[in-house]
Amino acid sequence: MKILNLLLIFIPISFLGEFMHFSPTLIFIFAALAIIPLAGLMGEATEEISFYSGPKLGGFLNATFGNATELIISFFALREGLFDVVKASIAGSVIGNVLLVLGASMIFGGLKFKTQRFNKRVIEVSSSMLLFAVIGLSVPAIFTHTVKTELLNTKYEGLSVVVAVVMFIIYLLSLYFSFYTHKDIYSVDHEEEGEAKWSLKKAVAVLVIATVIIAFESEFLVSAVEPMTESLGLSKFFVGIILIPIIGNAAEHSTAIIMAMKNKMDVAVEIALGSSLQIILFVAPVLVFLSLIFTPMSIIFNEFELIALIVSVLIANRVSSDGESNWLEGVQLLAVYIIIAASFLIL
Amino acid sequence: MKILNLLLIFIPISFLGEFMHFSPTLIFIFAALAIIPLAGLMGEATEEISFYSGPKLGGFLNATFGNATELIISFFALREGLFDVVKASIAGSVIGNVLLVLGASMIFGGLKFKTQRFNKRVIEVSSSMLLFAVIGLSVPAIFTHTVKTELLNTKYEGLSVVVAVVMFIIYLLSLYFSFYTHKDIYSVDHEEEGEAKWSLKKAVAVLVIATVIIAFESEFLVSAVEPMTESLGLSKFFVGIILIPIIGNAAEHSTAIIMAMKNKMDVAVEIALGSSLQIILFVAPVLVFLSLIFTPMSIIFNEFELIALIVSVLIANRVSSDGESNWLEGVQLLAVYIIIAASFLIL
Amino acid sequence: MKILNLLLIFIPISFLGEFMHFSPTLIFIFAALAIIPLAGLMGEATEEISFYSGPKLGGFLNATFGNATELIISFFALREGLFDVVKASIAGSVIGNVLLVLGASMIFGGLKFKTQRFNKRVIEVSSSMLLFAVIGLSVPAIFTHTVKTELLNTKYEGLSVVVAVVMFIIYLLSLYFSFYTHKDIYSVDHEEEGEAKWSLKKAVAVLVIATVIIAFESEFLVSAVEPMTESLGLSKFFVGIILIPIIGNAAEHSTAIIMAMKNKMDVAVEIALGSSLQIILFVAPVLVFLSLIFTPMSIIFNEFELIALIVSVLIANRVSSDGESNWLEGVQLLAVYIIIAASFLIL
Repeated sequence: MKILNLLLIFIPISFLGEFMHFSPTLIFIFAALAIIPLAGLMGEATEEISFYSGPKLGGFLNATFGNATELIISFFALREGLFDVVKASIAGSVIGNVLLVLGASMIFGGLKFKTQRFNKRVIEVSSSMLLFAVIGLSVPAIFTHTVKTELLNTKYEGLSVVVAVVMFIIYLLSLYFSFYTHKDIYSVDHEEEGEAKWSLKKAVAVLVIATVIIAFESEFLVSAVEPMTESLGLSKFFVGIILIPIIGNAAEHSTAIIMAMKNKMDVAVEIALGSSLQIILFVAPVLVFLSLIFTPMSIIFNEFELIALIVSVLIANRVSSDGESNWLEGVQLLAVYIIIAASFLIL
Repeated sequence: MKILNLLLIFIPISFLGEFMHFSPTLIFIFAALAIIPLAGLMGEATEEISFYSGPKLGGFLNATFGNATELIISFFALREGLFDVVKASIAGSVIGNVLLVLGASMIFGGLKFKTQRFNKRVIEVSSSMLLFAVIGLSVPAIFTHTVKTELLNTKYEGLSVVVAVVMFIIYLLSLYFSFYTHKDIYSVDHEEEGEAKWSLKKAVAVLVIATVIIAFESEFLVSAVEPMTESLGLSKFFVGIILIPIIGNAAEHSTAIIMAMKNKMDVAVEIALGSSLQIILFVAPVLVFLSLIFTPMSIIFNEFELIALIVSVLIANRVSSDGESNWLEGVQLLAVYIIIAASFLIL
Repeated sequence: MKILNLLLIFIPISFLGEFMHFSPTLIFIFAALAIIPLAGLMGEATEEISFYSGPKLGGFLNATFGNATELIISFFALREGLFDVVKASIAGSVIGNVLLVLGASMIFGGLKFKTQRFNKRVIEVSSSMLLFAVIGLSVPAIFTHTVKTELLNTKYEGLSVVVAVVMFIIYLLSLYFSFYTHKDIYSVDHEEEGEAKWSLKKAVAVLVIATVIIAFESEFLVSAVEPMTESLGLSKFFVGIILIPIIGNAAEHSTAIIMAMKNKMDVAVEIALGSSLQIILFVAPVLVFLSLIFTPMSIIFNEFELIALIVSVLIANRVSSDGESNWLEGVQLLAVYIIIAASFLIL
């Protein structure tokens, strides 16, 4: 964590870059490097607060603030009307978590431990929820792509709101499930979390300050996307599906890998799947609701994003079904990620 | 069961409506409400007969008459040339069973029992058969949709007959499997079925009378579909995929939910999957054969029906693979059903 | 094995046919009948050599020469520019192994033994690798089919090379996995292989001679494909996806069925899945690399091949997940194969 914090130096650099009108590519890079440690601090602060708030409110805070960075970046992209980037980054977060994070965890963990086992029961709840969530999210998109274009009309925005409401209700019910009716399934993991290192005051202060700075950096980042992609000849999809999710999730990603290297594959897998679930059930609906303030955004993914989502979910289910992992499985997950990234790069 | 029988009052009402030329929407509703208890009586009569015929013939009768209502409704729709409605109702029966019935069973069962377990061995046979059956049914459809239209010709009806013959052979072989070579797998469920409550004479009489009245009601229902959809602005697909399967399967559906609430999830799951299998392996081929009398109907589903079928099967396999259910899984199944139904509604 | 060797008589017949300019259909049939026993001899020779080379080099030789026949046939097809046939035969080998070979093994084994069990651990490694491999192979193809044609350009050949390199690296890593880091998983199967029946000299001689003759026969076969399909009105896809894989794999197929009838389902399943894996991870990349000598071949499959590949892999995963088989499962696999073959026949 300490090493990541060195990147905080990019906060002043990115502000300087913005006001000195550096090239968009540089601004994008500086803002990205500044966001990474800020997202880590935000996560740390939320965890500290949860020691004071008790496990239930704490769990809820963790679940909700876990993807705050992505929500903030997407909010600014939404305000700029960059719907393609917003939707691509939703899909990209899911594939990043399932393929990149899980793949890297299995490789780094698998190099130290021959076969790593994890609790199938917890993972199965997450992986089957992920299956349902992606299917629910995909159905309207597949309909839209197969219907003749003359039939496409504003009804589809109505459908997006229906889907968003359904997803959000399931999100609330899944919190109720894991904190009330079936909390015993999850009890093992959250037992040994230790004590608060920060005072409540410090934790709240860090959370607020980090959130505010992330908001500024996100605006720098988002406003640099269009000029940068034009000058580099990159596709906006590549930025949305590969780069933004890596930036928004870097702190979480490093935690998953560290856990895998400590042979706590349960935690690593749960971070990857749980984070994907929150993106689909919480971040995506909230963005649809927020978009109603500006221009309504439909939640219709393009074919590429659908493929990436469905592939990720099939793999997550496959991986969860045997309750074991080794380095070769990790290599395969990473290989699929590389092939998807290469395909988006040439798009 | 007693409460459902109150709906029998709609038999005279629907006849009255038909001959007094009520609005098509009213005729559709009255016929639908009359069919629901009749289908229940038909099921009860078949079960009673099976006490006299011995378990093997009884099992065969149950399997064959279980979907008689749908077969009769579809027969009249076929005669009217409503191929779209027929095919939609085949797909709709499968998704209705897997998503709506299973979802409702898991919710109602899960509210009484925290975790419900079921025998994985029986369910795995059904869910893997369902996977193969849906794949077999989908392959020609996917081919047709990707081939350029100028290549589409009468060959496709030949392909439909091939698929229907293959499906029907598998149906017969699966009966042989479950009543002869592997009957021990199924022995547990059919043990404690008790005694006949009706005389054989009464049972046969009820079966014959119910079948005849269902035939009349189905004709009323089917002939009301086109004018009703036009006057309400509904799509025929919505009627075929959502409404008709609910009408045809209502009696079975309530049985599954009651079983789930008695913590007999094995039976509930088996009703849902078994009924889906019979639709694909028995009802669909028989309808293709019957269509040769009128105009040959190809068994080519449209993209939406394919998606719905494939999604249902993936979920059924997922659900069966852990041998457990809880209320949250039920909510997820139902959520996917609602999203699919909403998508068909705006089609 | 002795019976297959009677087919060696077709070596002189096919040479005679080629030089006497028989009809292309006859030449195709004679060459096909000559290749079947030659491929068997080649496999036998490789196995004999592995007794002298020790298990590690032997395993590598077996893995590499196991698909030599297909590689040789495809090489000549590549040289003739028959890219459609080459790609169809890659897809066809996978579906042939998973549906036809596994289906036939389960039927023949299942008629003698009620339920056959196999070691889930080994099978799960193969079936999950197969899932990743097919997904990796499909992603660029799906991208290509959904991108508007004006965007299609030479970039796609670059993407094919990237995919081929990734696949080949995974192939090498999987050999390292099974011969070094995780060789204990596989130890059970390779224990009791007995002694060499041939001298090393004889084995090498048979290998060399069989390879040379197969090369000639493959050239006869490939040059007959185009005139034969034209005169018979067959599609080249049917030849590539159904006929060539059956010819190239006949010897392996008979081994799998014999193993199943001896209740060694582990071996039968491993032949089917292992052979599919080698096609995707070894044969396909090598063909892409070889094509760079002539005209670069993209590894983009058409929609039909994709469907067939994905279906096969879903089924293989399903089958592997319960670790059991019976005759009805075999019938279902075969039914899917028949429906796919019938669909390609009318293409």
